[in-house]
Amino acid sequence: MKVSIRVLPAGRDLKVKVGANLREALIASGIALDSPCAGQGTCLKCQVKVAGVNQKLTAQEEEKLTEEELRDGWRLACQVTVEVPGAVSLPKIEALQAKVGFGLLGEEIPLLPNVRRRQFTLDKPALSDQRADWDCLADYLEGSEPGSVTAGLSLLQGISARLREQNFKGEAVMVGNNVAALDPPGSAAGVLGVAMDIGTTTLAVGLVDLDSGQVITLDAELNPQITFGADVISRILYMQESSEKRSQLQKELVKGLNQLLLRLCRNAGRARERIFEATVVGNTTMLHSLLGLDARHIAVAPYVGGLNRALCLPAEELGLQIHPRGRVHVLPSIASFVGADTVAVMLATRLSRADAPRLAIDIGTNGEVMLATPDGVFTASTAAGPAFEGGRIKYGMRAARGAVSSFQAVPSLDYTVIGGTVPRGICGSGLIDLVAELFRAGVLDCKGRMLLPSEAGSSLAAELTPRVRTRGESREFVIFQDGAAEVTITQQDVRELQLAKGAMRAGIELLMKEAGIGAGDLREILLSGVFGNYINRAKAVALGLIPPIPLERIHFIGGGAMDGALRALINLEERTRADQISVQVRHIELSGRPDFEETFLRHLALGE
Amino acid sequence: MKVSIRVLPAGRDLKVKVGANLREALIASGIALDSPCAGQGTCLKCQVKVAGVNQKLTAQEEEKLTEEELRDGWRLACQVTVEVPGAVSLPKIEALQAKVGFGLLGEEIPLLPNVRRRQFTLDKPALSDQRADWDCLADYLEGSEPGSVTAGLSLLQGISARLREQNFKGEAVMVGNNVAALDPPGSAAGVLGVAMDIGTTTLAVGLVDLDSGQVITLDAELNPQITFGADVISRILYMQESSEKRSQLQKELVKGLNQLLLRLCRNAGRARERIFEATVVGNTTMLHSLLGLDARHIAVAPYVGGLNRALCLPAEELGLQIHPRGRVHVLPSIASFVGADTVAVMLATRLSRADAPRLAIDIGTNGEVMLATPDGVFTASTAAGPAFEGGRIKYGMRAARGAVSSFQAVPSLDYTVIGGTVPRGICGSGLIDLVAELFRAGVLDCKGRMLLPSEAGSSLAAELTPRVRTRGESREFVIFQDGAAEVTITQQDVRELQLAKGAMRAGIELLMKEAGIGAGDLREILLSGVFGNYINRAKAVALGLIPPIPLERIHFIGGGAMDGALRALINLEERTRADQISVQVRHIELSGRPDFEETFLRHLALGE
Repeated sequence: MKVSIRVLPAGRDLKVKVGANLREALIASGIALDSPCAGQGTCLKCQVKVAGVNQKLTAQEEEKLTEEELRDGWRLACQVTVEVPGAVSLPKIEALQAKVGFGLLGEEIPLLPNVRRRQFTLDKPALSDQRADWDCLADYLEGSEPGSVTAGLSLLQGISARLREQNFKGEAVMVGNNVAALDPPGSAAGVLGVAMDIGTTTLAVGLVDLDSGQVITLDAELNPQITFGADVISRILYMQESSEKRSQLQKELVKGLNQLLLRLCRNAGRARERIFEATVVGNTTMLHSLLGLDARHIAVAPYVGGLNRALCLPAEELGLQIHPRGRVHVLPSIASFVGADTVAVMLATRLSRADAPRLAIDIGTNGEVMLATPDGVFTASTAAGPAFEGGRIKYGMRAARGAVSSFQAVPSLDYTVIGGTVPRGICGSGLIDLVAELFRAGVLDCKGRMLLPSEAGSSLAAELTPRVRTRGESREFVIFQDGAAEVTITQQDVRELQLAKGAMRAGIELLMKEAGIGAGDLREILLSGVFGNYINRAKAVALGLIPPIPLERIHFIGGGAMDGALRALINLEERTRADQISVQVRHIELSGRPDFEETFLRHLALGE
Repeated sequence: MKVSIRVLPAGRDLKVKVGANLREALIASGIALDSPCAGQGTCLKCQVKVAGVNQKLTAQEEEKLTEEELRDGWRLACQVTVEVPGAVSLPKIEALQAKVGFGLLGEEIPLLPNVRRRQFTLDKPALSDQRADWDCLADYLEGSEPGSVTAGLSLLQGISARLREQNFKGEAVMVGNNVAALDPPGSAAGVLGVAMDIGTTTLAVGLVDLDSGQVITLDAELNPQITFGADVISRILYMQESSEKRSQLQKELVKGLNQLLLRLCRNAGRARERIFEATVVGNTTMLHSLLGLDARHIAVAPYVGGLNRALCLPAEELGLQIHPRGRVHVLPSIASFVGADTVAVMLATRLSRADAPRLAIDIGTNGEVMLATPDGVFTASTAAGPAFEGGRIKYGMRAARGAVSSFQAVPSLDYTVIGGTVPRGICGSGLIDLVAELFRAGVLDCKGRMLLPSEAGSSLAAELTPRVRTRGESREFVIFQDGAAEVTITQQDVRELQLAKGAMRAGIELLMKEAGIGAGDLREILLSGVFGNYINRAKAVALGLIPPIPLERIHFIGGGAMDGALRALINLEERTRADQISVQVRHIELSGRPDFEETFLRHLALGE
């Protein structure tokens, strides 16, 4: 027997078998639920609010959830067995949304969009002027450039009725040289564009009024593909199993974007049909997945994808629900692991214009490193792994409610938790703080070994070493403990961070070597990426994650990729610049270099 | 109860109710059956061969069909009531197919097609060359023109697998600057194109090998829209009833073209998927219908359609079953009643290059008249009506088996019948002969009145006037009689021809007046159109259909429109020329002229 379960806020009705596991039912129906513990009830990431369905709490839930959470109706989807009809509210991903920032507001971008309005007043048909309707409009719009304006079939099919309704006057909405719509004269309907940043984890969108160039609103959502693998490699592995699976991931992604656009436009009180253009950035794999391209060769040497150039295509061909004659402009990528998101960061930071060496780092599963010098721009991709995003970390989690996001050991142990709740896990910035501070305090030695009280010599460590304990064969440091609830960092977690840090720092070092400069030559370091904003600069330097330069020369640039996508939406010259960047940049393939391993091993150690 | 009826040669199975009329069932299922008598069993045009279904002949069939036809299994579909399962063979439209002629063979057209092959050998991906697959191919094909080559999503989606299968070598099939296909190296598969002439009655197609420029084969078929109205006005009236009906006519047309293409390619042993481009000509209404455009304003003053310019679009958007990435190039029209077919005739006849006045006439329901002079080219459309194609003529029919196609009265009465059978009707050329000869013989006076023996003065008429009889209130001339079977031409038929001739001749006269020339200035007259080839020049002059010039200066140019479509397929410069023609030609709207009616009335009379 099946019962009906309404999923909120989407308002979708699922038919679910009685006895089914709620988490599995949600995932099976394509709803993105992050659940790294695979339904064991330990990661606490599949929290939902439940009405009806099954109100009996499991022991796991009673143990793991706080009183406040239980009172507010939070459950763990993995612990709920469907019994009766009901409703499930998915959490609003506030943390994700908060993370979408952009720096545009500080700088005026000249308005030169690809979407423009052109007013027209045509001569009415007469025996003395028998030009066909389209010919007459095209003549008008082309002026002194015959043949410069085009129209698609669907517009032509409606043009005769439309021109007569409007008494042969109105405004043509042009996307490039294509007439996409004919508005009545003096139409109040705006002309909108949307910038999209497609991340492995997060989809971010920004809505822009293309009449004014103003950003109306931003929003973000989990990439629904997340249920098919946490990182690009697992997505590629899934896609290459069959063309059906490749197509499935593409559809999930497009559906996710459409839902996000719907919410974005509803919240802004705008119509999706008034969006005439989308600019798209993202890592190379995500762009392949969006376009339905074969990504399997990205994952194996020599790491060559199907397409890095920019691509412009009809929104309808992708199934993107903007104006049916709207266009999608996908920005170019540089290499298989240096995508259009990196190009966008370079646009946003004007990195190509460096007159003194500047280093930019986009921190994520793949840390993209960019070094601009007067002699040119160099890029590399470092396989940092998922540690910075909470992957393979025992209590790792994204920067969401309950995450320890900063930590200090001296003068006294202190930490902050996102949302001010009890700690539930550790996000990337928290992890960096923890390792840097435990190293400074002597709980970790320079090789990253966690010291028991008997081994630690420092007096500082004396305050902290009692929190070091051994579980099984492994040591761990206890950050928080309240009954059964606890958050710890393990020896293995430290090793994971060392690997990530070593890979990223090695990439930076090799780029500087290639460009013939040292850390002292760097005018500035720019940090971007999903958690760039949360990093403590001093601790990142202390850890050795970034080269040692004065802290005032280290800057955060928020969601640089979204910034770049917005720029390309608002000003056509930015697209030309993106194309230039993508071909002029010198990409250094680290895996091809004999000096990589030695550099990597050297930077596994903590500190400089 | 329904029974199954197999329709041959299409091989389609219909489920038809027992008791249904076979003609109606065929038309209801979208099969084009010409039946101007609307199922009365008198026009004999719905002949089919029947096996099973119902073998009992009706009295009408026994009376109207010849012994030979009955022996061969011919029936009148309108007389057959479905009783049992069976099969119906539609006639092969030999006459239609024979009519598709073209003059290209006499002239070498330089090969400059829009579809070309480009061989390529790419560097294989390596750590030292990590360009993405498409980037690498595009770089190769573009050479010194970066950004000059494009590809659609479906090609990009398959490019990585395809290049690896072919070991990074092969041939790119380019349609314009778009890569439409990647063939293996040394592929033997040809690259084909198709030219299409979409007439109100007839669809004609020509298959071309674009490697050599050679025409492989031609074929033609009835326009399946014919069941929705015989002429453009009735099609427009049908289409404007609702958007569903507009869409229905479009689908019928595209289906008809696809079936014709299938047969064409089967007969030629070629694959439809190797056709990469189609050039399309046709009258303006048919092109509107093909594209799904609103044609209603074509039919009412000031006669303005939606689109006259050339249009290039993906074959998939039209549903045309050629290569899925093939393109369709629709040639430009001049005005609502001077379509791309006329432009094509002008291409084929090089009419725009006149150094001495040349007149070209495309004879059909709408007679398009073109006059090229050193000062420019003039066109007009004359509303000749359907008489030239057998419409509104009692025994009128198209130039098919059984049609009286030529006629002489002197020295003795003689006529020829297409297919050598007994006469069943009169086609356009036969009608012109009949009226011209009966006028010469004195059976018709110069006002077109049919004379009874008592009224006719001439001795020649004495031989013929006994064939003039009165039926009801109307006179008619008996051409053939064998028992109940007969073919006659009525007084009303003569009036219809006078109207058609008067309209066409008036158009010719007004164009010459506009250009400031007289008949004596004409270097030549070119006749084209579906029955242009069958006209007796001397009789056309005698009738006053065309201006009196020496017969050796009157030439037939066969299917000039197909010729022009083929030219545009084989040589790109012809498309530019077509665009120039469409804007440079001076179209004279006859309905807007005060001198039209007087000229028309003057030319109603027979003779000069």
